Amino acid sequence: MKAPDRVPPGGLAAATADILARLRERHPRVHCITNAVAQSFTANILLAAGAVPSMTIAAEEVAAFVRRADALLVNLGTFDAERRRAVEAAIAAAREAGKPWVLDPVFIDRSPQRAAFARTLATQNPAAIRLNAAELAALADRADPEPEREAHARATVIGLTGARDLVTDGARQVVIANGDPLMAQVTAMGCAASALVAAAIAVEPDALTATAAAIAAFGVAGEIAAERSRGPGSFAVEIIDALHGLDAAALHRRMRTT
Amino acid sequence: MKAPDRVPPGGLAAATADILARLRERHPRVHCITNAVAQSFTANILLAAGAVPSMTIAAEEVAAFVRRADALLVNLGTFDAERRRAVEAAIAAAREAGKPWVLDPVFIDRSPQRAAFARTLATQNPAAIRLNAAELAALADRADPEPEREAHARATVIGLTGARDLVTDGARQVVIANGDPLMAQVTAMGCAASALVAAAIAVEPDALTATAAAIAAFGVAGEIAAERSRGPGSFAVEIIDALHGLDAAALHRRMRTT
Amino acid sequence: MKAPDRVPPGGLAAATADILARLRERHPRVHCITNAVAQSFTANILLAAGAVPSMTIAAEEVAAFVRRADALLVNLGTFDAERRRAVEAAIAAAREAGKPWVLDPVFIDRSPQRAAFARTLATQNPAAIRLNAAELAALADRADPEPEREAHARATVIGLTGARDLVTDGARQVVIANGDPLMAQVTAMGCAASALVAAAIAVEPDALTATAAAIAAFGVAGEIAAERSRGPGSFAVEIIDALHGLDAAALHRRMRTT
Repeated sequence: MKAPDRVPPGGLAAATADILARLRERHPRVHCITNAVAQSFTANILLAAGAVPSMTIAAEEVAAFVRRADALLVNLGTFDAERRRAVEAAIAAAREAGKPWVLDPVFIDRSPQRAAFARTLATQNPAAIRLNAAELAALADRADPEPEREAHARATVIGLTGARDLVTDGARQVVIANGDPLMAQVTAMGCAASALVAAAIAVEPDALTATAAAIAAFGVAGEIAAERSRGPGSFAVEIIDALHGLDAAALHRRMRTT
Repeated sequence: MKAPDRVPPGGLAAATADILARLRERHPRVHCITNAVAQSFTANILLAAGAVPSMTIAAEEVAAFVRRADALLVNLGTFDAERRRAVEAAIAAAREAGKPWVLDPVFIDRSPQRAAFARTLATQNPAAIRLNAAELAALADRADPEPEREAHARATVIGLTGARDLVTDGARQVVIANGDPLMAQVTAMGCAASALVAAAIAVEPDALTATAAAIAAFGVAGEIAAERSRGPGSFAVEIIDALHGLDAAALHRRMRTT
Repeated sequence: MKAPDRVPPGGLAAATADILARLRERHPRVHCITNAVAQSFTANILLAAGAVPSMTIAAEEVAAFVRRADALLVNLGTFDAERRRAVEAAIAAAREAGKPWVLDPVFIDRSPQRAAFARTLATQNPAAIRLNAAELAALADRADPEPEREAHARATVIGLTGARDLVTDGARQVVIANGDPLMAQVTAMGCAASALVAAAIAVEPDALTATAAAIAAFGVAGEIAAERSRGPGSFAVEIIDALHGLDAAALHRRMRTT
């Protein structure tokens, strides 16, 4: 009898610690096209993890930034005309240069135009897509889509976050039970998690492992931050400190993945 | 002899506690067209109060967001061309759908074009306008305007903030003596107060009570935050925590309204 | 024998304390055209120092803001079309009104278009240019440029920041050894330092002294903040508090300038 796949062999906590160590050693560059609400927090989360963010959205120069970066994040949270042009130029540059890119289709359940744009982007080989249940339904254009099927159809990794997180590439899957309810009471937490996925993919070629590691590490940092906070204001500060100081011992002790 | 109007019957502290409870229970959606400086802090203040912010300014999709929202905030703090188009589309959608909207005419005393735009918007039935004395003078286009007269002429509520705050609908008025000087040393505090007014109006049909409750609650949160801070950096964090944890006892003990 | 120039006579710590006192007394207005990532943190640093920020980038009204301001900051960190038009209008207004302006050519080493634009701007008499070594090389369009020569050629002050900071006007120079490594792990720290330079230049006509004072004060605030932080999240909060509370005693005790 074949044993079920372990993701990755040796345990996800060890893989996550290893990915964090690589981020802190290699300082990969992550170019982020993200919404104005999220830019500052996203940049600070990336810096806390060891990555180096850049954020320009000017269509004429975004390709130059992407070519000098190690990964690209495309977040649809602000959907103005210039940002759409930047998205297209950035993805083209990333694909041409063989750089991985990650899609965060924020709020596509609220706007048909945004959902249509996201469906087109999803055909352009993102290494991973991080989203919530409502956004996955809008992306799939059906109620109750199966994450495995959606990942398989697009040959990508889907990181579906919620009370529990599910990460799947269509064949393998990881369920993550870390995090804290305060994460839903601070803006840009999902956007920052997606940026962390892009950073992890810059240093870990297996996109499933990278995505699961980033989401789990962020959830563990959130748990540590919640213990040190008295509300969402201090929580937003503490999660940056917690991610910055996150070590293998805390990951092994706290990660709850299956 | 007719007794003077009480606003509202039973006391504003009780009404404010009740409005906060409704925000935490109903999680109203507040769409914000606001300046880039203020977006993140505004979103976090709304989340801390229980509301759910969205922030897109893309003219082609803003109407879809407003139709799915319970209230709209229009803040003129950044005045680029796309934002003006978004403002017009958003207000049209709000009025058509019967959703209340709030105007924050930031810095209109610094720019004649911005003042002219604000005067036009003020004729489009905002539920409330929150501003400071210099902005009210620019809106009224005269020195020392009377807030009651300006509110009455526009059939709106004016929330005039400063060392003391005055809220009036032309007939009734509330004076609020809460707050802390540190509030003037952190960016986007006024913008966030306006967003909180929009959230309150989403759950309280009497715009005068809603506006006064939001401004008073924010002032009380500021006083609590000042006691826990050693400067404007920690103050900006603590006011989010304080608003998140604000309860009826603190409101009854601290609110100073007449 | 002529003694070497002292910058300024009486010592830079005393000059820095005096400049901070003037900021807190006069509340100069600083108009900032800066990138969206940096806007909120920059505004809060300026407010903590006593200055009053404005941030509009709308080309049609930016001149009105600059004319009412005491200094202008031009930061190229986000390089979209509207921001370029705003930059040109703002610099023209500043020069016409005799207001000093400061250039921060963020990331011009990453994008040839941005470098070309910065080189043009640098001919338009900035009072100071604050940048890092890679950006100076891109501005000078050569490897290992000499800061003194670049400052002299443009009749400006160059504030070159790094592990040590060098401030020069071509004739005089100050080396500053303050700061903390955490400053490199929070976004917009350099942008905020440039804004502080603009604020200092608004109240101190000697641009060399003003630039050195601003960079040194920011470095000292960073050292104090680092002692109170456990990571980059709390550091970003503490540096605002530290700058707000910075006094002459701390400057005299901590400043390491030669």
